[in-house]
Amino acid sequence: MLGAAEETTSGVQALRVMHEQGALKISVIAVNGSRTKYLFDNVYGTGQSCVMALLDITNLQLAGRVVIVVGYGSVGQGVARHAAALGARVVVSEIDAVKALQALHDGHRVQSLSDAAPDAEIVFAATGIAGAVTPAHVERMQDGVILCTAGGGAFELPMDYLNALETATQVRPSVTEYATLAGKTVLVIGQGDCLSCSDAEGNPIEVMDLSLSLQALTAEGIATEGRNRPPGVYPVSPQIETAVAEARLRHEGATLEILTDELFAAIHSW
Amino acid sequence: MLGAAEETTSGVQALRVMHEQGALKISVIAVNGSRTKYLFDNVYGTGQSCVMALLDITNLQLAGRVVIVVGYGSVGQGVARHAAALGARVVVSEIDAVKALQALHDGHRVQSLSDAAPDAEIVFAATGIAGAVTPAHVERMQDGVILCTAGGGAFELPMDYLNALETATQVRPSVTEYATLAGKTVLVIGQGDCLSCSDAEGNPIEVMDLSLSLQALTAEGIATEGRNRPPGVYPVSPQIETAVAEARLRHEGATLEILTDELFAAIHSW
Amino acid sequence: MLGAAEETTSGVQALRVMHEQGALKISVIAVNGSRTKYLFDNVYGTGQSCVMALLDITNLQLAGRVVIVVGYGSVGQGVARHAAALGARVVVSEIDAVKALQALHDGHRVQSLSDAAPDAEIVFAATGIAGAVTPAHVERMQDGVILCTAGGGAFELPMDYLNALETATQVRPSVTEYATLAGKTVLVIGQGDCLSCSDAEGNPIEVMDLSLSLQALTAEGIATEGRNRPPGVYPVSPQIETAVAEARLRHEGATLEILTDELFAAIHSW
Amino acid sequence: MLGAAEETTSGVQALRVMHEQGALKISVIAVNGSRTKYLFDNVYGTGQSCVMALLDITNLQLAGRVVIVVGYGSVGQGVARHAAALGARVVVSEIDAVKALQALHDGHRVQSLSDAAPDAEIVFAATGIAGAVTPAHVERMQDGVILCTAGGGAFELPMDYLNALETATQVRPSVTEYATLAGKTVLVIGQGDCLSCSDAEGNPIEVMDLSLSLQALTAEGIATEGRNRPPGVYPVSPQIETAVAEARLRHEGATLEILTDELFAAIHSW
Repeated sequence: MLGAAEETTSGVQALRVMHEQGALKISVIAVNGSRTKYLFDNVYGTGQSCVMALLDITNLQLAGRVVIVVGYGSVGQGVARHAAALGARVVVSEIDAVKALQALHDGHRVQSLSDAAPDAEIVFAATGIAGAVTPAHVERMQDGVILCTAGGGAFELPMDYLNALETATQVRPSVTEYATLAGKTVLVIGQGDCLSCSDAEGNPIEVMDLSLSLQALTAEGIATEGRNRPPGVYPVSPQIETAVAEARLRHEGATLEILTDELFAAIHSW
Repeated sequence: MLGAAEETTSGVQALRVMHEQGALKISVIAVNGSRTKYLFDNVYGTGQSCVMALLDITNLQLAGRVVIVVGYGSVGQGVARHAAALGARVVVSEIDAVKALQALHDGHRVQSLSDAAPDAEIVFAATGIAGAVTPAHVERMQDGVILCTAGGGAFELPMDYLNALETATQVRPSVTEYATLAGKTVLVIGQGDCLSCSDAEGNPIEVMDLSLSLQALTAEGIATEGRNRPPGVYPVSPQIETAVAEARLRHEGATLEILTDELFAAIHSW
Repeated sequence: MLGAAEETTSGVQALRVMHEQGALKISVIAVNGSRTKYLFDNVYGTGQSCVMALLDITNLQLAGRVVIVVGYGSVGQGVARHAAALGARVVVSEIDAVKALQALHDGHRVQSLSDAAPDAEIVFAATGIAGAVTPAHVERMQDGVILCTAGGGAFELPMDYLNALETATQVRPSVTEYATLAGKTVLVIGQGDCLSCSDAEGNPIEVMDLSLSLQALTAEGIATEGRNRPPGVYPVSPQIETAVAEARLRHEGATLEILTDELFAAIHSW
Repeated sequence: MLGAAEETTSGVQALRVMHEQGALKISVIAVNGSRTKYLFDNVYGTGQSCVMALLDITNLQLAGRVVIVVGYGSVGQGVARHAAALGARVVVSEIDAVKALQALHDGHRVQSLSDAAPDAEIVFAATGIAGAVTPAHVERMQDGVILCTAGGGAFELPMDYLNALETATQVRPSVTEYATLAGKTVLVIGQGDCLSCSDAEGNPIEVMDLSLSLQALTAEGIATEGRNRPPGVYPVSPQIETAVAEARLRHEGATLEILTDELFAAIHSW
């Protein structure tokens, strides 16, 4: 075991905690932390494909609906952007004040999940955090609300609570209906697992090309240098990040401005 | 002199170079580096107000036009977003491959300025870098092209070259027309200075509230602790960043999700 | 007097009523009814320029605000589209159910003005109808609400009621503040007159080129044929409508698909 | 046979031609001509579901791609709007100058299909007209171009020409690859049939609720009054149009402004 490369937001988060607690015994490259990963795969890959998967599974439209996005990280931003583009009115729930302010500036309403719950028609959990949506939140939601997860997993939703109701009925492929204590109906998509993985074809192939190219080049670096690195969480090298982005741009026929000697000097003067 | 707080992207960039070269003798807080600054002031403040200033000065519309945005940092992203929202087809020119790829994903065409120049009807320089637009670029542009600067200053445009043509005529308040060697007309807005400062009322007041609140709280910190910091460029403290964002959210009637003990534990487990 | 050509929505509406009541003694061409007029001038001209005028006069931003658009005709759609593009959450108030449903699908909230009033931060009247905003509506609005008119005129706002309060103070150029009976502050822009005319440079020049070209060609037709037409409201001829649109497209370098004999036959077969 | 009700744009078009040629022997209600139909079903139903079906079948993303939309009627506008929202750069090809000008104002490039063909990565035919895309157009397209139809049918694409090449290979479910005479690859989705019908679940259910409600109420009218109407193409009654839109708004919790006596009088005065 020479090292590892981690692809997901929630994985990197857990590895950092492991390292803080002295439990990480190898070096890990945080591929998710690369701009060439999270600015594209998370926003346009997971964000887009989860919204599309929901529409494909339910045959609903978003125009005219209130959609709550819990968490405004890269995935949540992607979900919100695509839902709004399809005509939804988006409400964002966040812990972080700066991300909340971003959501406000992007044209979304900002409310705590408790405050927003009564208006919700569709809820996307996009936090990567266990227990982000609680039984108390669900009890405040209206009859017929749809719950699903984008990016993370079923641990974000109160599945234990819902399953303990012993009212689960599969009403359509990938759609389970529960009756809550208050007599309302809750619909959960794909058992609450990440929509794009459980019930769609995954992210679009072009965006996976970016992420998997980062992984391949990072793996090469681990093979040659991983053994020498002390345990810890390391960034992808800027050279790899840039090389992958440039390859994609070339493929799209895009051209980059050249960093001339004059521009280099201008950037490095004061 | 206890220290300083720097508000602008180009100022922070220069201060970092000074520090690398050992020329910085005081501690400076990079207010521009705070998320509560650059995610709002640069994108929604400068980006929006420069697009609006151009329309106000020229009485043109953007629908149907090709707009080149040189530089896709925060200001460039703001200009591109607002220009596209008003119906322009935006072309982005960048040195950085990852930013260029972002522009591509945001729906813009990506080309070097040389490649894009022949199509340009309006060019916004948003680089903060001297000489970003060269005489050679201008000679490739079509008759009647409009040049202006968003965020930085006239040093981004080839003003020496244009002024040496000795053909300057003021054709409308804040609009100067030049005849190039190739016999084409070039229009420069506000002598090439940053549009929102030179020819508009500056950025909207709400966004300045964010930036100036950061400055005020940072100044307080410099007064009490600045003397003890070694020379260098320091970030705004997360407490200040969050406090300012929270104040604005409260004012807007937005509510934040609370970080419960359960959520805190979930975030810090693996 | 050979005939007339009417440029505005509210003008054409009044002329139709005149004709129904037998009061119209000449032939009038409804230039506003031409697609080459109302799809562009009303949406991109008046819609855009009224939003911009408001921002210019107040130095506010729309990101994060609740904007009520009263009336979802061409001008209202233009105001709503531009306000949403700048980050506002838009609420549309309509009498017509189909237009209201369009607003819902465009991502806006739909409420009667009475229901929406308590949330309003900025209200655009875009109805062309006298008394569209009543004193009762205003009394339900929050402290500091801003009222203005897009496209029509001050008759849409309860100016008599406001002026009778005898509390008018000019607090900024083009901004008048009133204190209501309930002790709240109301701000009116430009005496309530159409924003783009009273307090901006009017519509962008390219969009006026369309409207004034329609007027010029229509005037030519009135000169030659107007005398022979019975009183009534007539449409612009399709030839004029198309000729003006084609001229603008040529100027923009756009090319049209040609109606070949094969396509013509396909369109006219069953 | 008491009469009929026609749901589609191309159906109504053909019926009008039949009537002009004296071939229509019954009365037909043009349900597609109702605002409550074409402003929603065509734009948000067919437009949205065809874009989604393409992404679902191909697992591609639109961000960064050039998409040509042939025809800018309701369906074409819906395709263009959703493709642009997903990051595509859209080129619109039109015969009608006014629709072309709308496309330009909506931020799209406007070119004849011949001019646009070399840049196309994905082509949506949205014309309802046989032969809209010709063999000559296809020969000008780049290697790997994807062809599909939104709203109409395979008759819009040069399927006879492609099939005569005798190179068809199914490379993925619903995707057929052809090699052209020039040695380039062309991919056709779903045999060229309307994407939302052939390869997706059809339009979202809410939008079909509108269309089918119009059909049901129209059928009731045909049953009671159809026998008495002379042959011809008739509009849906405004009462039905409004009743269906109001029902949907009520379901969404939206409220309408009430037409008071004062407003009625204001609308009908001059």
